[in-house]
Amino acid sequence: MSFLVPRMAALSPYVPGMHTEAEGALRLNSNESPYPPSPGVASAIAEEAGKLSLYNDPDCTALREAIAERLGVKPGNVMAANGSDQALLLAMAAFADARHPVALPDLTYSYYDDFAAFLGIPLLRRPLREDFTLDAADYCEPGVTVLFPNPNAPTGLAVPVEEIRRIAKADDGRVVVVDEAYVDFGAETALPLIDVCPNLLITRTFSKSGSLAGARLGYALGDETLIGELQRVRSATDLYGVSRMAQAAGIAAMREWPYYEANCRRIERTREWTRRKLTELGFEVLPSLGNFVFARPPVDAALLQRRLEARGIYVRRLSAERAKGRLRITIGTDADMERLIAAIRAILEEER
Amino acid sequence: MSFLVPRMAALSPYVPGMHTEAEGALRLNSNESPYPPSPGVASAIAEEAGKLSLYNDPDCTALREAIAERLGVKPGNVMAANGSDQALLLAMAAFADARHPVALPDLTYSYYDDFAAFLGIPLLRRPLREDFTLDAADYCEPGVTVLFPNPNAPTGLAVPVEEIRRIAKADDGRVVVVDEAYVDFGAETALPLIDVCPNLLITRTFSKSGSLAGARLGYALGDETLIGELQRVRSATDLYGVSRMAQAAGIAAMREWPYYEANCRRIERTREWTRRKLTELGFEVLPSLGNFVFARPPVDAALLQRRLEARGIYVRRLSAERAKGRLRITIGTDADMERLIAAIRAILEEER
Repeated sequence: MSFLVPRMAALSPYVPGMHTEAEGALRLNSNESPYPPSPGVASAIAEEAGKLSLYNDPDCTALREAIAERLGVKPGNVMAANGSDQALLLAMAAFADARHPVALPDLTYSYYDDFAAFLGIPLLRRPLREDFTLDAADYCEPGVTVLFPNPNAPTGLAVPVEEIRRIAKADDGRVVVVDEAYVDFGAETALPLIDVCPNLLITRTFSKSGSLAGARLGYALGDETLIGELQRVRSATDLYGVSRMAQAAGIAAMREWPYYEANCRRIERTREWTRRKLTELGFEVLPSLGNFVFARPPVDAALLQRRLEARGIYVRRLSAERAKGRLRITIGTDADMERLIAAIRAILEEER
Repeated sequence: MSFLVPRMAALSPYVPGMHTEAEGALRLNSNESPYPPSPGVASAIAEEAGKLSLYNDPDCTALREAIAERLGVKPGNVMAANGSDQALLLAMAAFADARHPVALPDLTYSYYDDFAAFLGIPLLRRPLREDFTLDAADYCEPGVTVLFPNPNAPTGLAVPVEEIRRIAKADDGRVVVVDEAYVDFGAETALPLIDVCPNLLITRTFSKSGSLAGARLGYALGDETLIGELQRVRSATDLYGVSRMAQAAGIAAMREWPYYEANCRRIERTREWTRRKLTELGFEVLPSLGNFVFARPPVDAALLQRRLEARGIYVRRLSAERAKGRLRITIGTDADMERLIAAIRAILEEER
């Protein structure tokens, strides 16, 4: 017997990368940062621990100020959220519904599908080109809300900001959501456009470049009116959603951002090394601007994934049709990736 | 110009008790605990601070085990959430929709209204009796999902568990949600019923008796099938919603629960003292089983609220029709309530 109402009974939720904290396990399946948070994060969190009996600031005032200051925008351009997942879910709820569908790529972050199914929003899937690049023309249809990550995941490919402007301007009466979860690893941000595109909403996360995946913190950026509308929807559902610890961690991370920028540069260098090594081993690797690569191994992807798992290395295989035969591999430290490459080399030799 | 879809444009979100962290301010407006978290909470959180670059356990396995152990249920009877607000929102989404309305009291936690408006769920408001007690017969209609807090807020009145059984059994094909946010201050829990009522869902929070309002942590309890269905809806919307810090804090609090139980007993004693003093001052005070009292002052409630605010004391006035003329006052420490009573006495003398 089921108690679920029909739409909920039809959900088939997202399956994340396997969660393991086993000793010696190398997690290259969830696009986490291999670097710990900056020193100020731990002390900022410790300072909140004694105040936990009191509710957190529902407006996240100090956090929004810290984000705004670093990015050169106003606090009114910023809404904090319990992870960018929440900002994305709320954006879909606010700006789309059963009669206002959302256009998105056929290969992208698959959690969007769950949000849409939960909210009853129809999706219009726009196929990426054969080479996995996104064609801006596919998102210029008037009246259709738009959502895509830039760079896209799992491909790692980005569209130029000029293309995002073109999409936003094609109909400035509907919202264009650009998920910049991975923007800090070499892609260009669309942030300067929020002044000229009042319909452009950008979401960001502290889970990747900010080394705070386990703290749950993300935010949205946009014109003050647009952010105000999103905030209103947030207020109706999860007023206190961003905990004291998450707010404090985010403020500390913003203040120590040069540390995170240096990590991003390191990850970019490690990514390029990894790409070269994988290519030498016969992989076909897309040029990525994320903290991951999307690669087709010279052997069966499922087999390689299993063999790597047997060696304690976890990489991601996605169920989407166009991801078949490929693996998404998070970029860790140099040592992590040397371990990965050595393991792959050994497995390929065994397979020969 | 607005970008919101029609249902979202119609939201008029919940306004919480004023959030202030000003020195000397006495917050008696948000039903927070006046006692800090137990010592183990700070160290548990500190231990997570270094691991924040890694995602939290989406299944909250250790936390659910700790809750289950304390309550004498199975981990499968427990779903953790980012505050009980999230558990309640998800429960409404899972078990009600536009064609399956929710029955609830006409005077209750007003955030339920926002969840329903957000989700497009019609509400059937069942008037409490003249004395603010709840009539179980109002919730026995077949096919109607039920939601109420027990004890109710802001009244502080509870229905006997036998009445909850009667409601659940009246139609065991629909879900009955009992919000036990305030159950630890002297009311009887409906928890033993989950074995015999597979349609009974109980929600709980760490924000009140658990001294963790700023950490965002709540949970749902019920039959394993029911919890599994709720968990599926959670997975589709907020897989990682409960942060590492919140999970660690909750585990520590469960292990040190005797500390919190002692606080609850202290709060009950302070509540009865406060009720006596307010009655002596001419208030009409409902007998409360929460960590608050709902009282009609002998002067205009809005005036008294303003005068208290001028003295740095914040109490809550609710906008609901049946709350008119009354204040909801959180129970703090003995010293807090002595300060409140002295302030009220002074204000009443000025008004004479």
